[in-house]
Amino acid sequence: MAKANAFYAQSGGVTAVINASACGVIETARQHKQHIGKVYAGSNGIIGALREELIDTSRESAKTIASLKYTPAGAFGSCRYKLKSIEENRAEYERLIEVFQAHNIRYFFYNGGGDSADTCLKISQLSEKMGYPLQAIHIPKTVDNDLPITDTCPGFGSVAKYVAVSIKEAGLDVASMCQSSTKVFVMEVMGRHAGWIAAAGGLAAEEKGDAPHIILFPEIAFDRKAFMKRVADCVKQFGYCAIVASEGCQDKDGKFLADAGTVDAFGHTQLGGVAPTLARMIKDELGYKYHWAVADYLQRAARHIASETDVEQAYAVGKAGVEMALAGKNAVMPAIIRKSAPGKKYKWKIEEAPLERVANVEKKMPRNFISRDGFGITPACRDYLAPLIQGESYPPYKNGVPVYARLKKVMVPKKLKTSFEV
Amino acid sequence: MAKANAFYAQSGGVTAVINASACGVIETARQHKQHIGKVYAGSNGIIGALREELIDTSRESAKTIASLKYTPAGAFGSCRYKLKSIEENRAEYERLIEVFQAHNIRYFFYNGGGDSADTCLKISQLSEKMGYPLQAIHIPKTVDNDLPITDTCPGFGSVAKYVAVSIKEAGLDVASMCQSSTKVFVMEVMGRHAGWIAAAGGLAAEEKGDAPHIILFPEIAFDRKAFMKRVADCVKQFGYCAIVASEGCQDKDGKFLADAGTVDAFGHTQLGGVAPTLARMIKDELGYKYHWAVADYLQRAARHIASETDVEQAYAVGKAGVEMALAGKNAVMPAIIRKSAPGKKYKWKIEEAPLERVANVEKKMPRNFISRDGFGITPACRDYLAPLIQGESYPPYKNGVPVYARLKKVMVPKKLKTSFEV
Repeated sequence: MAKANAFYAQSGGVTAVINASACGVIETARQHKQHIGKVYAGSNGIIGALREELIDTSRESAKTIASLKYTPAGAFGSCRYKLKSIEENRAEYERLIEVFQAHNIRYFFYNGGGDSADTCLKISQLSEKMGYPLQAIHIPKTVDNDLPITDTCPGFGSVAKYVAVSIKEAGLDVASMCQSSTKVFVMEVMGRHAGWIAAAGGLAAEEKGDAPHIILFPEIAFDRKAFMKRVADCVKQFGYCAIVASEGCQDKDGKFLADAGTVDAFGHTQLGGVAPTLARMIKDELGYKYHWAVADYLQRAARHIASETDVEQAYAVGKAGVEMALAGKNAVMPAIIRKSAPGKKYKWKIEEAPLERVANVEKKMPRNFISRDGFGITPACRDYLAPLIQGESYPPYKNGVPVYARLKKVMVPKKLKTSFEV
Repeated sequence: MAKANAFYAQSGGVTAVINASACGVIETARQHKQHIGKVYAGSNGIIGALREELIDTSRESAKTIASLKYTPAGAFGSCRYKLKSIEENRAEYERLIEVFQAHNIRYFFYNGGGDSADTCLKISQLSEKMGYPLQAIHIPKTVDNDLPITDTCPGFGSVAKYVAVSIKEAGLDVASMCQSSTKVFVMEVMGRHAGWIAAAGGLAAEEKGDAPHIILFPEIAFDRKAFMKRVADCVKQFGYCAIVASEGCQDKDGKFLADAGTVDAFGHTQLGGVAPTLARMIKDELGYKYHWAVADYLQRAARHIASETDVEQAYAVGKAGVEMALAGKNAVMPAIIRKSAPGKKYKWKIEEAPLERVANVEKKMPRNFISRDGFGITPACRDYLAPLIQGESYPPYKNGVPVYARLKKVMVPKKLKTSFEV
């Protein structure tokens, strides 16, 4: 096994723990210097490879690399850039191979969601055809939790924990105020296509009457009448109603609630936000005083309240990715496999999953995870979700705020004469 | 000193640490059983006194009371109910005295902001006139940080910490994505009349280029042209722009930005939200892709990331309130006095402040705390704010979510035949 360099890139929306995967990749590679030379990270993801903008991670101290484990977001930069199909833009793939060849890169670690799994597979296939064998390993990451085979996707557990903790706390706030003031609280969370994140809010409710009282999933067509009745019932029974709403809530015709077709004075489509839309709807129909929150990036960046389980898994898939590469694997993804039975202490291990079985397969939320009335989660869902938010992995603090990694980001000198427009 | 009971009530918007003050009051009272009989808590604040709905805190275990120290929101219920002036509604005050008399209550601890300081003072004065001497102690609490004399108001430090941590994390997220995606992030925070909370966001920025790049204060009239220029400059210089905006942002005529006069399809005033308004404005003028968040109740309920300093001070003012009562004081508030010089290790003590000097005095944010350009905080502001967010006071967790107090809330049997409409 000849010594070669590795390329690592972060792809798509970042998470609270994607850097923990980077840490796993880099630290493990450093332990195998006889096989892996340097780890080059794409500056802003795959765009960095296309532009030959490579960050030399060997110039970062062991301490800095270790601090990636508790640093949120994408330390090397990520991008929303989807490679076209090989037929449509073969030049892009060829450019990647050209850059890899110029820098003696034989290991490709792509840290992302479904799209990057697909890209990773294509690069592996094309490199083989072009006679430049490259070991392409996909490191799973997505708050959407929609990758197949793996029990969960690193990044999801921490968003899930943030959402459960936040609605528990805000729920107590509303409960305090509801006698004479706010009676309804709506918290909007991410998940345009799937209700995994919204479902996690359900973990906050441990006893009857606990917030959240209603969860709105994109999988369940919004039924205004049933919803209003439930809100009114909650206020009657508990004094208030706390709601977690997925940004992807839609009506039976598939129209997003946030796209209410409303326009402002300038004729612009209203900004949306499912939370304010629902809050106003409730005010109009039931007259309750409301508050609403939209967590947006706060939820996926919230490293301060990350799930310890999620952090460990994120690190583990990074580490396992390198180990698979060292074992000669190609076109695989380290998947998290649940070994424990529902309700038992969570046990998991890493196994390799062929990318052919990962790419272009979306894991949907099972219908039996959503209660029959469509407004909550089932015990089966709770059994699945609860282990994923276990444990608190706090970052270090200085002056009252977390100390997150600051990289030097020394660039690798370019070797190619040609530039590439992205 | 004859033994008598105490009444404790939570008032106005709740915080992450108001229950820590309750804990300080109840635990300290329990240490002085020879003078203070039972502590009765108003169910939903002062409304509970008017309705004779009193919670017997002696029925809660020591462990439950201790857990109030790490439980957010108002465990006994709060209310937004302002007593009218004595001239306007003397009956209300007389009713309070009647209830206190019926339950042998001679100590009145009112945990709230400016309005409750005023109420507390009036009740003290009236009770004296009515020949029912009552020791009325105001326990400071408000995320608005606008009480005079005291260095800070319990509740504020924890919101400040939440805001600083959140914009630091979200800022890293945007920095990761900005090359090919989101370039502007706007986070809306509380503070309709004062920019204290928005200012705290500035603590996240430790080096040049760190988020937040712009802070919008209610104290500074919004200048669209200067704002847009600054946003564009930031994107040019740093690649992105992270903004903390106070909900109270207003233009030079005092019109709230959130009240943009826009209406939806039903003719309703647009829901507002400064964050979406600003984000859309930027998109229209500069074309940048944006994200926005509105933290709302999440920020003031976020006990999971409370400031240890804030928790300690909240407990201390509760404890000191009881000690002042035991020392025969009346119409006073325990104030936090800063003993350390700017930039030195924070030292503070509790001193009594006469309510006459507290009631109806609003502490404004000094102009020299806001940078000359109006978009940031000054070193003086940082010196003032930084100590208030020091230390992390984590609650215990079980199953991945915080374990917060669950009270039995045993009601004190009513003694009065009359009821009172609130």
